Amino acid sequence: MSDIHAPARDLAAAVAAGERRALARAITLIESTRADHREQAVALLAALPRRQALRIGLSGTPGVGKSTFIEAFGLMLTGLGLRVAVLAVDPSSARSGGSILGDKTRMEQLSRDPNAYIRPSPSRAELGGVARRTRETARLCEAAGFDVVLIETVGVGQSETLVAEMSDLFILLLAPAGGDELQGVKRGIMEMADLILVNKADGELKATATRTVSDYAGALRLLRKRPQDPEGFPKALPVSAVEGDGLARAWDEMQALAQWRRETGNFDRNRAEQAQSWFLSEVRAGLLARLEREPAASRLSALGAQVAAGRADPVAAAAEMLESLG
Amino acid sequence: MSDIHAPARDLAAAVAAGERRALARAITLIESTRADHREQAVALLAALPRRQALRIGLSGTPGVGKSTFIEAFGLMLTGLGLRVAVLAVDPSSARSGGSILGDKTRMEQLSRDPNAYIRPSPSRAELGGVARRTRETARLCEAAGFDVVLIETVGVGQSETLVAEMSDLFILLLAPAGGDELQGVKRGIMEMADLILVNKADGELKATATRTVSDYAGALRLLRKRPQDPEGFPKALPVSAVEGDGLARAWDEMQALAQWRRETGNFDRNRAEQAQSWFLSEVRAGLLARLEREPAASRLSALGAQVAAGRADPVAAAAEMLESLG
Repeated sequence: MSDIHAPARDLAAAVAAGERRALARAITLIESTRADHREQAVALLAALPRRQALRIGLSGTPGVGKSTFIEAFGLMLTGLGLRVAVLAVDPSSARSGGSILGDKTRMEQLSRDPNAYIRPSPSRAELGGVARRTRETARLCEAAGFDVVLIETVGVGQSETLVAEMSDLFILLLAPAGGDELQGVKRGIMEMADLILVNKADGELKATATRTVSDYAGALRLLRKRPQDPEGFPKALPVSAVEGDGLARAWDEMQALAQWRRETGNFDRNRAEQAQSWFLSEVRAGLLARLEREPAASRLSALGAQVAAGRADPVAAAAEMLESLG
Repeated sequence: MSDIHAPARDLAAAVAAGERRALARAITLIESTRADHREQAVALLAALPRRQALRIGLSGTPGVGKSTFIEAFGLMLTGLGLRVAVLAVDPSSARSGGSILGDKTRMEQLSRDPNAYIRPSPSRAELGGVARRTRETARLCEAAGFDVVLIETVGVGQSETLVAEMSDLFILLLAPAGGDELQGVKRGIMEMADLILVNKADGELKATATRTVSDYAGALRLLRKRPQDPEGFPKALPVSAVEGDGLARAWDEMQALAQWRRETGNFDRNRAEQAQSWFLSEVRAGLLARLEREPAASRLSALGAQVAAGRADPVAAAAEMLESLG
């Protein structure tokens, strides 16, 4: 390995030693789009020690009390002596300006907890780019010794699938609702969920929440049981983030499922598949990104204009473009 | 242009002269995956004269009487002196073996009509590949002087979108149905349709078909009117492929819509956009196809295995792979 990567290796060592500022610097490096930064980021990732946290994907639409849940759940975990990182994967359309401040404000106590680290979604237009960086940030947090990496997303577009693909467990946080609204949860999302938590099981909504839990439990029973899961999973449970009820039970269930998957080898198998498809999507994205670099980008747009004007055949123009890429 | 492309230019001239055997040979060349054939195919496409047929995309699930409709509609068009080509875009899962014979058997009269040409879906596993070849075959048929190119698909997966993207008009053929079943048609598909034809408007089903037409007409009114369309479109109409009722009316409507789009410039604009996105998808597919060629393919699978085994970092391995591609 050449010496130009020495700073990246030093940074990797500092991240692994648990230095908070090093982690922040590493994440900033990873989120940069500058070519030289990217090269350092690749060297940094390669130099990280292999540690594993429990990666928990969490999806919840606005209004279900997701921030309150993460704050209460995160504080419970740090109270148990665990170190918790919270990352977000949100399409930019779902976020208003100043989200960094927003995230820390809405999880005020957790953000001040020395055993917690909150990182908002990088502000990029494209969901694929956000997912890419979040995957790398999760790796950094694992190397930094966090025990739990919580990856949250709002339920918009493909973001749930992307988060599930980088998590060991996938949790759906839902609000108490009437039977009709139950259909609003897409079947595909239900099928990804390991645990459905119905929040706001407190005060006036407690009875509704209990009914909602059994509605979802019934819906989950109708879905095909996945061979990689033990009896009784996926499961639906009530929680109250405000009152703290049900959080310990939810954590017990998550640990039981993770434990079962570890013992059956499904945990590692899942990680191996995720790493492989991450590798493949990096290769594909990197290859396609060559079309955005000069002189390829100018040539592509010139040929595209000729095709649109009917002066060139699409297939012949594509062959010409591909040849020019070498 | 070098002389190795002389056979391709000769074939292009024969296709343009309307020679049926040349067309069949050209399609076979286009469907071949051999590298030297592909090169000839690119030269052939570039040498074709630019002629335009009306491209009609047609989607209908099994059981709606699609073959009967195409046979009756096609014979009506050839009866008007028009030359009609029928192509199919079907994911291989939707086709049983012997589909070539099947297509010609189920459209027996049309297949014997000298002014008609029926080409079944190329038997490939991957829908993207089928779409690619069908786009090129449609170009060949236009150059060969066909007036109408009918591109049919079963309503499975993404095939409707692919067909709509290579058509000037998109027609949905549906069966008479109760109000509840109406929801079975996905909103996205409805939004692509220029014309919904409710088939089997004859005998016992006539009343149901009439009701179904007004149900769909109501549903279409709820969809946002597209700025590129004249008043009254998209439209729902009853047809009976068996008795021949409504076919002339349907053709009138298609012509009126096409005429309107030609006059407003939307027809050419749509074609230009289609050509440009065809070009872009050819470039992207061609670039990604490099990963399937040796020695890249072997290297990709070796690196992927290392990543899965945890012996290499996904991002670093991807960077290594990209570098090896030059």
